[in-house]
Amino acid sequence: MSSPKQISLGLSMRYLGYHAAAWRHPSADPDAASKFSHYKYIAQTAEAAKLDMVFLADGIGLRTKDEPPGALRRSHQTLELEPLTLLSALSSVTTHIGLVATASTTYNEPYHIARKWASLDHLSGGRAGWNIVTSWSEAEAHNFNRDQHMEYELRYDRATEFVEVVKGLWDSWEEDAPLFDKASGIFFDQSKLHRLDHQGKHFKVKGPLTIKRTPQGRPILVQAGAANQGMEIAARSADVVYCSFFDMEAARAYYADLKARAAQHGRDPDSLKIMPGITLFIGRTREEAEEKHAQLNALVEPELGLSYLYQQFGDLSAYPVDGPVPEPPDPRIRSMAAKALALARRDNLTIRQLYTKVAAGFGGRVLVGTPKDIVDDMQAWVEGGAADGFNLCPPVLPLGLDDFVELVLPELRARGMFRTEYAGPTLRENLGLTPPKNRYAV
Amino acid sequence: MSSPKQISLGLSMRYLGYHAAAWRHPSADPDAASKFSHYKYIAQTAEAAKLDMVFLADGIGLRTKDEPPGALRRSHQTLELEPLTLLSALSSVTTHIGLVATASTTYNEPYHIARKWASLDHLSGGRAGWNIVTSWSEAEAHNFNRDQHMEYELRYDRATEFVEVVKGLWDSWEEDAPLFDKASGIFFDQSKLHRLDHQGKHFKVKGPLTIKRTPQGRPILVQAGAANQGMEIAARSADVVYCSFFDMEAARAYYADLKARAAQHGRDPDSLKIMPGITLFIGRTREEAEEKHAQLNALVEPELGLSYLYQQFGDLSAYPVDGPVPEPPDPRIRSMAAKALALARRDNLTIRQLYTKVAAGFGGRVLVGTPKDIVDDMQAWVEGGAADGFNLCPPVLPLGLDDFVELVLPELRARGMFRTEYAGPTLRENLGLTPPKNRYAV
Repeated sequence: MSSPKQISLGLSMRYLGYHAAAWRHPSADPDAASKFSHYKYIAQTAEAAKLDMVFLADGIGLRTKDEPPGALRRSHQTLELEPLTLLSALSSVTTHIGLVATASTTYNEPYHIARKWASLDHLSGGRAGWNIVTSWSEAEAHNFNRDQHMEYELRYDRATEFVEVVKGLWDSWEEDAPLFDKASGIFFDQSKLHRLDHQGKHFKVKGPLTIKRTPQGRPILVQAGAANQGMEIAARSADVVYCSFFDMEAARAYYADLKARAAQHGRDPDSLKIMPGITLFIGRTREEAEEKHAQLNALVEPELGLSYLYQQFGDLSAYPVDGPVPEPPDPRIRSMAAKALALARRDNLTIRQLYTKVAAGFGGRVLVGTPKDIVDDMQAWVEGGAADGFNLCPPVLPLGLDDFVELVLPELRARGMFRTEYAGPTLRENLGLTPPKNRYAV
Repeated sequence: MSSPKQISLGLSMRYLGYHAAAWRHPSADPDAASKFSHYKYIAQTAEAAKLDMVFLADGIGLRTKDEPPGALRRSHQTLELEPLTLLSALSSVTTHIGLVATASTTYNEPYHIARKWASLDHLSGGRAGWNIVTSWSEAEAHNFNRDQHMEYELRYDRATEFVEVVKGLWDSWEEDAPLFDKASGIFFDQSKLHRLDHQGKHFKVKGPLTIKRTPQGRPILVQAGAANQGMEIAARSADVVYCSFFDMEAARAYYADLKARAAQHGRDPDSLKIMPGITLFIGRTREEAEEKHAQLNALVEPELGLSYLYQQFGDLSAYPVDGPVPEPPDPRIRSMAAKALALARRDNLTIRQLYTKVAAGFGGRVLVGTPKDIVDDMQAWVEGGAADGFNLCPPVLPLGLDDFVELVLPELRARGMFRTEYAGPTLRENLGLTPPKNRYAV
């Protein structure tokens, strides 16, 4: 028997967890999302468990709307800390775990991003990752001098160029440019410091960075968009892809497509790790798992629950919450929620059942079961060519992480699917990726 | 006898110190500016000494030029870490010291700055400060899609509005907006969350922030420009002003002017702390201090030293380095270097003597003497109405800080001029400032 494929594991730690009622759980400190101690516990627990990385998704504004009215005040998706500062603070209380923060290419400048992530890579000794996203919401546009969000093509065109500029800036200093020769007084070899002199459609950036080449060569690049142009950025540049799929067939098709695109760009497909998100409710028995799931779901008041359907269905307050889901007034269906909706229609769910489904994992895939159930599922996805690992999105933090460590991790290790020790101190080593070559190195 | 006025003390920790040859000092690790351990030692040492804050100046690009050719490769002002990430990392290994990072209003967006500094204030438990600057160099313009730097009036006009937007965003959440009522499921009081809806000349920012009101109410605001419009920003909004003066009369005039302006804005002049920068060479005897000064100065090669005169004098390579300073070819004189130059002309210095003077403190004020000499000078400035404290810019780090702690601090404390314990865990408390009121609070 061949040895099983090793999986990569990330942990999403935004808000108080990925369940709409996370903050009401008896174990939860509802103020935790503003507290460093909360994140420190999570990151150190994830590191003790030898996870590859902790991750923070992001939006640059309050994207949660008060629709229907009364929903907003019930949502814990209203308070957080800014990802880059938070992960920098975590860098000095951890030693091995990767630190992946999201930053938008739509409302940033490549010089700032290149500089800040290079700095984090130094501060953490080679554990920084940048999750590349574009900003699509009006709420974000309104915080950055715009009346409307940037349209899709333009946004991705900008993102593509943005990533190239950032990668170029990261090559400013060759590895051996610093000399530090006290005797001669020569601080560095000027022939190994390079200006980018980029002049493109969206950006004009001369460089160089004032930060030397980082421990990982460059930070790890993560991409999280499933749309065509996002996949192209991923295929060309990403080391890790976060995605969200409900069924394995769709995930397999995406996996095969993306790996093939990477190969077309001359890359080893194994150098691109595809990690779907999952929200786990874990019990020693199936009953216990179902009970945990039901306990949280019962804490989603209709006033909040209906907000998760608003975008697709408009205001459903007038319909009986335990009656059938009416036809949407507007055929516009979008992003991850669309997939949840299709499943819900198939299973003939009530309004409450439907919003509960979305609220339980913020629209992502939810698994409820024993450690064996869950690892069977993970193994099937990995061996079936649908995933290289998973991005864990616990329903409640830190509880969901503690459950995973106590119950699921031993089962993964018993099957030889997950490490017991880190391969090294950098995220790149733990992902099994080779260091990038500096474009100027001879 | 009345008790002496208590002074505030900050520590600038950019590069390897404020001397051009800092990295060549026998005690220096020339690679230290890229190492977290270096800054951790400095911040923890400064905290053990009960200093108010550590501070990072900044430029968003390589402002050091290779003029005359050959100078750049000798300069340690070429490698650093990014201030915000660095101070965030330091927030989790310190408990009381203030953390002040510079960010430019010229090439940033107010929403990003408001959010990141609010986050740092939470992470640090109320120790964040933002040093407000504008960007005036071509090198920075070239990294942000521009061919030329933004002209003075426009730059400061933008800065003024920028600061108002940031302050507005910091008031998004009233202190008592979060309710966290698990029983009712109400997370926060929506009547206490406010949108800014700013529409100005330079910015359109709707808000709100997704970060709750910070431990200090808002981060401390620091301003570092001596020009008229910078002084207006300081008078209206700053808690701390960094400045640079060579002689006490000029410092007194500036001090009086700025305090009067603060009063005109309805502020208590004591709520604005004016802290001139000083670079100290400290010896148990004057001879020892002079020796330390001379030792470093001798490590400034002419190829590097001349670069500090280039902006005023052009290329002086053809002149004898130990001969007189020729007339500048171009009458444009600018910023802090102008003051050093005026003093040097008065004293009839050679080229080497002149560049040494500038190179010894990057154009700032340099004091060479015993602890008594130095504290006499500090006391005279404070009692003479020229300063509320000082921003220490050690010539070599961490050596210059260690010297200060060992030699000068006991003298300051013996005279009752500096605390022996922190007043509290926030920077605001240690500066003796009162919490700001939220504009929406009833």
